[in-house]
Amino acid sequence: MDDSLKPVRIGICGLGTVGSGTFNVLLENADAIAARARAPLQVTHVGARRDNPACDLAGIRLSRDIFEVARDPEVDVLVELIGGTTVARELIETAIRSGKHVVTANKALIAEYGNELFALAAEHNVALRYEAAVAGGIPIIKALREGLAGNRIEWLAGIINGTGNYILSEMREHRREFADVLAEAQALGYAEADPTFDVEGIDAAHKLVILASLAFGIPLQFASVYTEGITLLTPQDLDYAEELGYRVKHLGIAKQGDRGVELRVHPTLIPKDQLLANVNGVKNAVLVEGSAVGPTLYYGAGAGGKPTASAVVADLVDLARDLSAGQVSRVPSLSFADTSLQDLPILPMAEVETPWYLRMEADDKPGVLSRIASIFSDQGISIEALIQKAPTAGQVRVPLIVLTNRAAQGRVDDAVEQIEALDSIAGRVTRIRVEILDG
Amino acid sequence: MDDSLKPVRIGICGLGTVGSGTFNVLLENADAIAARARAPLQVTHVGARRDNPACDLAGIRLSRDIFEVARDPEVDVLVELIGGTTVARELIETAIRSGKHVVTANKALIAEYGNELFALAAEHNVALRYEAAVAGGIPIIKALREGLAGNRIEWLAGIINGTGNYILSEMREHRREFADVLAEAQALGYAEADPTFDVEGIDAAHKLVILASLAFGIPLQFASVYTEGITLLTPQDLDYAEELGYRVKHLGIAKQGDRGVELRVHPTLIPKDQLLANVNGVKNAVLVEGSAVGPTLYYGAGAGGKPTASAVVADLVDLARDLSAGQVSRVPSLSFADTSLQDLPILPMAEVETPWYLRMEADDKPGVLSRIASIFSDQGISIEALIQKAPTAGQVRVPLIVLTNRAAQGRVDDAVEQIEALDSIAGRVTRIRVEILDG
Ligand SMILES: NC(=O)c1ccc[n+]([C@@H]2O[C@H](COP(=O)([O-])OP(=O)(O)OC[C@H]3O[C@@H](n4cnc5c(N)ncnc54)[C@H](OP(=O)(O)O)[C@@H]3O)[C@@H](O)[C@H]2O)c1
Ligand SMILES: NC(=O)c1ccc[n+]([C@@H]2O[C@H](COP(=O)([O-])OP(=O)(O)OC[C@H]3O[C@@H](n4cnc5c(N)ncnc54)[C@H](OP(=O)(O)O)[C@@H]3O)[C@@H](O)[C@H]2O)c1
Repeated sequence: MDDSLKPVRIGICGLGTVGSGTFNVLLENADAIAARARAPLQVTHVGARRDNPACDLAGIRLSRDIFEVARDPEVDVLVELIGGTTVARELIETAIRSGKHVVTANKALIAEYGNELFALAAEHNVALRYEAAVAGGIPIIKALREGLAGNRIEWLAGIINGTGNYILSEMREHRREFADVLAEAQALGYAEADPTFDVEGIDAAHKLVILASLAFGIPLQFASVYTEGITLLTPQDLDYAEELGYRVKHLGIAKQGDRGVELRVHPTLIPKDQLLANVNGVKNAVLVEGSAVGPTLYYGAGAGGKPTASAVVADLVDLARDLSAGQVSRVPSLSFADTSLQDLPILPMAEVETPWYLRMEADDKPGVLSRIASIFSDQGISIEALIQKAPTAGQVRVPLIVLTNRAAQGRVDDAVEQIEALDSIAGRVTRIRVEILDG
Repeated sequence: MDDSLKPVRIGICGLGTVGSGTFNVLLENADAIAARARAPLQVTHVGARRDNPACDLAGIRLSRDIFEVARDPEVDVLVELIGGTTVARELIETAIRSGKHVVTANKALIAEYGNELFALAAEHNVALRYEAAVAGGIPIIKALREGLAGNRIEWLAGIINGTGNYILSEMREHRREFADVLAEAQALGYAEADPTFDVEGIDAAHKLVILASLAFGIPLQFASVYTEGITLLTPQDLDYAEELGYRVKHLGIAKQGDRGVELRVHPTLIPKDQLLANVNGVKNAVLVEGSAVGPTLYYGAGAGGKPTASAVVADLVDLARDLSAGQVSRVPSLSFADTSLQDLPILPMAEVETPWYLRMEADDKPGVLSRIASIFSDQGISIEALIQKAPTAGQVRVPLIVLTNRAAQGRVDDAVEQIEALDSIAGRVTRIRVEILDG
């Protein structure tokens, strides 16, 4: 094929962590990439407000105004790596309207405006790809959209925020407090100056929404995700969980059930011998339950310049291969044909059933346990395990840890309200969901 | 797209474990599959020597002669699920020459005759897909060929034979002997009546050859793989490995180094806190080290009717998507363009360096240890750890376990020969390679 040697001309906007990683991976692995794509992938234009010493731009057109890249007729694919949902959105729209294909790592943008952007791309007959938007370098989008295409996806559960997983791993391994680990992670540059997106679960929610759409064939719907962060977890809870045979992970979970779709991000106790429980530090992993294949798991670096660049370049190679075949829309953007996307109902959290881990501070005196047990029993909640710790010297209260069987959140809310009202209980009850995930 | 609704007509040959699984997955998940493929996947013809009660063939053409399927003008894609390298090869060649696309799960055939078959398919402008040939339902072919296309693949290591992994898991967990577990697995139908392919590593070698081609851009070369089975492993070795912090797994390993490519299947000690070490039972997993992404891991069911069908159907959906785009060769069969496949040299095993686990039976008397230590030292092999077990009552010999640093097999061969010649050593020295796999 002679025409397959025509280079694919790439414009990169944003030369930060992922932008510079992508630039350099395209350069370093140019030969292997061209051999796979059957065409060279050539960066012809870079849009960056300032230089990045990690990138040698000699011979490459550089614009301080990134919109120049979106309008450059010498660019076939615009790679958006500036982040955010304002300028990035405008940039991508401009590129699409100029007939350019787009590759992005921007999960916030896809989760919040993906439906509109995919429609716009279809209208202009260009591709909009986003493998890097979820779980960094792990090819999870491709796995869901193509590799598992023969399955009904029943549920998926993922560690999809590296910073959060790093903090939890450190808290558990070294019995450190949340705030302490976070401060260190910020000092070392692992966590953003504003860590809200990571530790409050917003970043994970963005990614979960994308995974759920791909898995179930539903439109993107960021507003539907229930999101709970890791800021209130204590090293004690992580310890008690271990004692019960569990490990606490911050998971994004999507399930398709008879009564609706569950979309939730929250700390979760999972059995500690599960692979997912043994994914530590900044690594990510997604466990997917398919009707035919059963559980499959995808593990790797969820962030970082070069790992994320790996996913960006995979999209570029995919696109180059599509271009050589003369068709860029062979795979629907959200896996299912647009016309078959279904707006399935989302199950309200009050109705979501899981087992629960509950911890409370109880007076160390007779009758308290039986009072609590009867509150659970009145709500139809059965108790699976209970640990009462010995009082430490001079303390009148003891930690009481209860593991329940499956119970709807609404019932647990009611039980907790009654328990917190007891004189023999001090303060609030800590609640963490449990998932068995038989993977 | 109106024409996208044209069904893709599928002929399935072989209605055994995977054939019946594929037939039923296509039926059960027809809606989700059609929505993803943007075309119905319709089984129009089945070739099977006899009926399978698990499949309702009402309304579907059935031929006892599978070659009828290869010649049927109403079939677009022939799915070969009979296995073996004789009739299956002839069947696939016939289908290709009749202008049909082919999907197969046949690793033996691809590993041994893939080069010729891919060339024939290219000549006839049809696709030959084989996702199910490696690691069952895990989409590892797609990950290597597409998801990691931006990387130089440095090495990969996989548990790619479920039966072997099941036997090792049972031996370790219940301290059972190899022959005992194998006999049970055969009785339960997990292992074939002739288990040679599984326990001698031949099946794993077939799969490794395929993975190595995809990873490094080299032609398929089954004859180049070094293959060692698990038949000589004892529960004692698995125990001692644990004591040293390792677990024994039967791995397929491919590495690209300065001096050549390593292609080897053998029992391997790996650190027991690694994810790969915690893949148990019949499950498979492949760990891949990419230059940009670092380590990624893919885990799931490596065998079974429906899990393997998941991969077969993924190929069919991929193909349907390609057909709707009017081009089936957008991705080269072995990931790299045929013209850029390189016949890299294979490193002879004598030059392959790994750390080693060595176990011997030594007389329990002074001087033996120092004699052995000096043999290693003469060969330039340094010792990382050494365990000498206490003699059990009435025994004059004790097990001696040595963990070495990296050493070429040639040197270890020499050292072992000298050690086995010592009067104070009884019998043979057991040797197992070690890999650190910093994943
Ligand atoms: N970092 C990761 O590990 C990772 C992983 C997966 C996905 N992502 C996604 O990848 C995208 C980029 O992330 P990043 O980590 O590479 O961020 P980053 O290091 O902050 O880089 C962003 C770059 O974009 C530039 N930029 C921002 N707004 C701009 C504007 N209006 N005009 C011109 N340039 C602008 C910034 O320039 P200045 O320096 O001049 O501000 C900076 O160089 C985000 O969508 C992020 O969510 C990142
Ligand atoms: N089983 C797995 O988990 C698995 C996983 C991955 C890949 N694979 C691969 O998938 C393929 C099929 O494996 P399988 O486990 O499904 O094998 P199987 O259960 O033995 O089924 C093979 C079927 O093919 C039929 N067959 C064999 N030779 C034939 C011939 N010459 N003419 C007509 N029919 C013929 C057999 O018919 P009879 O019953 O009449 O002999 C049988 O129904 C193999 O290549 C295997 O390596 C299997």
